[in-house]
Amino acid sequence: MHYAAVLGFGTVGSGVAEALQINTGRLTAKGEGITLKYIVDVRDFPDSPFAGLMTKDFAVVEADPEVDFVVETIGGIGIAFEFTKRALTAGKSVVTSNKELVATHGSELMALAKDKGVSYLFEASVGGGVPMLRTVANNLGSENIKEFFGILNGTTNYILTQMFKNGVAFADALKQAQAMGYSEANPTADIEGHDACRKVAILSSLISGKQIKPEWIATRGITGVALEDVVNAEKLGCTIKLLGRAVFGKDGSIRAYVAPHLIPGSILLSHVEDVMNGLFIRGESVGDVMLYGAGAGKLPTASAIVSDLYVLAKDKLDGEQFAWGDPEEGSCSDAGELESAWYVRMCPADGWKREQAGLELIAEAEESLAYRSAEMSQAAMEAAFAGQTVLSAFRIIK
Amino acid sequence: MHYAAVLGFGTVGSGVAEALQINTGRLTAKGEGITLKYIVDVRDFPDSPFAGLMTKDFAVVEADPEVDFVVETIGGIGIAFEFTKRALTAGKSVVTSNKELVATHGSELMALAKDKGVSYLFEASVGGGVPMLRTVANNLGSENIKEFFGILNGTTNYILTQMFKNGVAFADALKQAQAMGYSEANPTADIEGHDACRKVAILSSLISGKQIKPEWIATRGITGVALEDVVNAEKLGCTIKLLGRAVFGKDGSIRAYVAPHLIPGSILLSHVEDVMNGLFIRGESVGDVMLYGAGAGKLPTASAIVSDLYVLAKDKLDGEQFAWGDPEEGSCSDAGELESAWYVRMCPADGWKREQAGLELIAEAEESLAYRSAEMSQAAMEAAFAGQTVLSAFRIIK
Repeated sequence: MHYAAVLGFGTVGSGVAEALQINTGRLTAKGEGITLKYIVDVRDFPDSPFAGLMTKDFAVVEADPEVDFVVETIGGIGIAFEFTKRALTAGKSVVTSNKELVATHGSELMALAKDKGVSYLFEASVGGGVPMLRTVANNLGSENIKEFFGILNGTTNYILTQMFKNGVAFADALKQAQAMGYSEANPTADIEGHDACRKVAILSSLISGKQIKPEWIATRGITGVALEDVVNAEKLGCTIKLLGRAVFGKDGSIRAYVAPHLIPGSILLSHVEDVMNGLFIRGESVGDVMLYGAGAGKLPTASAIVSDLYVLAKDKLDGEQFAWGDPEEGSCSDAGELESAWYVRMCPADGWKREQAGLELIAEAEESLAYRSAEMSQAAMEAAFAGQTVLSAFRIIK
Repeated sequence: MHYAAVLGFGTVGSGVAEALQINTGRLTAKGEGITLKYIVDVRDFPDSPFAGLMTKDFAVVEADPEVDFVVETIGGIGIAFEFTKRALTAGKSVVTSNKELVATHGSELMALAKDKGVSYLFEASVGGGVPMLRTVANNLGSENIKEFFGILNGTTNYILTQMFKNGVAFADALKQAQAMGYSEANPTADIEGHDACRKVAILSSLISGKQIKPEWIATRGITGVALEDVVNAEKLGCTIKLLGRAVFGKDGSIRAYVAPHLIPGSILLSHVEDVMNGLFIRGESVGDVMLYGAGAGKLPTASAIVSDLYVLAKDKLDGEQFAWGDPEEGSCSDAGELESAWYVRMCPADGWKREQAGLELIAEAEESLAYRSAEMSQAAMEAAFAGQTVLSAFRIIK
């Protein structure tokens, strides 16, 4: 029998407590039982069914040799970082959904875990309950992954789906997302792409074997997507999705970024709607593989945490650890050099030559023109529209 | 360093040889190198780049203590069964794409492997390069899986896609599939659903923990799907797909079957086209998860075999073994008892009462009527149309 402590009794933490209850009978039957022994939170929860497990003092967990698994659902990189280090140092494996901490200090925490002979696992930090990390690290571990691109943030996908399906403008769709509880009161991390950026950092680190820092990933959110772009995308048989993408060159180069893209209907990812997430992986042998499911939410995220605990219980810490090395300056090349077709909407200055080589006019409104370009880099695209007022410029994935 | 032998130099076997070449540098760099030492085939391949590895005598492999991995791509349950038993008995792990052998003798071979302290792995037997089995067995290993349904056969999905997108009749679409090399000269195993049935057997065995025999799975193929059904399905916003499905009851019951279904456009699986496969998994905590990719083909299938070899090399045979117990008579309950809405097309006898409770008329042609029913069992559906000439009766998934 294993004993676990949950740090932080918020949405995810309480979901883990519930999921352990739901699954504990089956896990115990498989000989891999996990008992929840403590919940650490500074707040009081006198009416919770788990009230008997509550403590405010992490030191109690730290000092209890029976506890071998610690679940960190505090979030952020302050106290969560400190408690994770202390738990690993005390010889306890740590499981988390904290993407910010993993993306920022992952290699340091993994090295500490290895040093102490325990594990630091974080399947829940990307894709909620969908096993994206384990698929990349183990199931496709022998595959030469050429690139991935994915819808990695549910809030922005909900907003874009509302814009597409119901013609709702961005600001109103955001209000809806907040009313539905999909987005925080401060939605910046979602709509500016920072949440997706952290997930791209984690996936890229896992694939490349070295920590890719979030600040190396050029990140643009969806605030610039207008209903006019939605209409124009539909003319091209496309939807608009916020994608996190990384391309791994044969020369070892890594080009990672987050930005809105047009996706043709022939690519299955274009049909991923509402708060659902999807990750497309392009491998040299396997071709295109996609993983799809709820990327957030109490029970799906808790499910991923329990799956990490299950792996720890089942495999006795062997062979399943996520691992990458320290960050190296210069790991990431300029993502702008990647060539693709572009969708560009602009207000032309008087006399601008509308017909240019490599530009196809797709829509003409009173004050704006929309074009699809031939395949070119970002710099070439910008040169083609030099001096003009560009309103939107999104890559078209293929 | 590990040494592997490939049995059978057909499409998949030669793909494994190539994939090991593509990936061997990276695997060796990770400390998990695998060298291909023998290829066993009764035929001569004097012009193959692998001619130097060829042997006609399996006993050479069996007697070589350096060979620790054997890849069986012979197919069928004759000589493949014998060689697999002999390889496991000689203390070699065996990796295969042979779904027929796994679905028929899986529990016996897994028990033998366990007895000899080696592994019998078969990720490639379901979903080609898409890691469906490892996802079910490990990544969602702590999840209570309520049901799965999937497009598990590429040939039939190609035929149905041709019928939907291009209005091609079944017989012509089948000829196209054969011309494209997607289907064997004898297409029975594909179009009658036997191939999908074996994959349902393997997935159900892995989830339930006991061997589910293919003959316990009610199986119907796509030969009865007419262009009229395609038109009617479109009226309902649905596509028609051949699904393999299993529902796992809270009481431990298993209801597994293969049949054409109508799938609404709101379910992502309805957009899986051509030869691609998709598996929907419904878990109690995780919700809906889908895995998508090429379900067959030389390199994708070889990729899955190499991923099994990689797991063996990396994990030193620990913790990753697929496992289930012996078959138990009565494991499967009648899938007909599952309730769902039905699509039914019929030639009514004169005077048949067209308006019935629970039946909604959706199309009326000269000689046939098409209905959507309320949710009911197969027996209830059949009773509703008793005495009539039913041309098509497909469940509508939701």
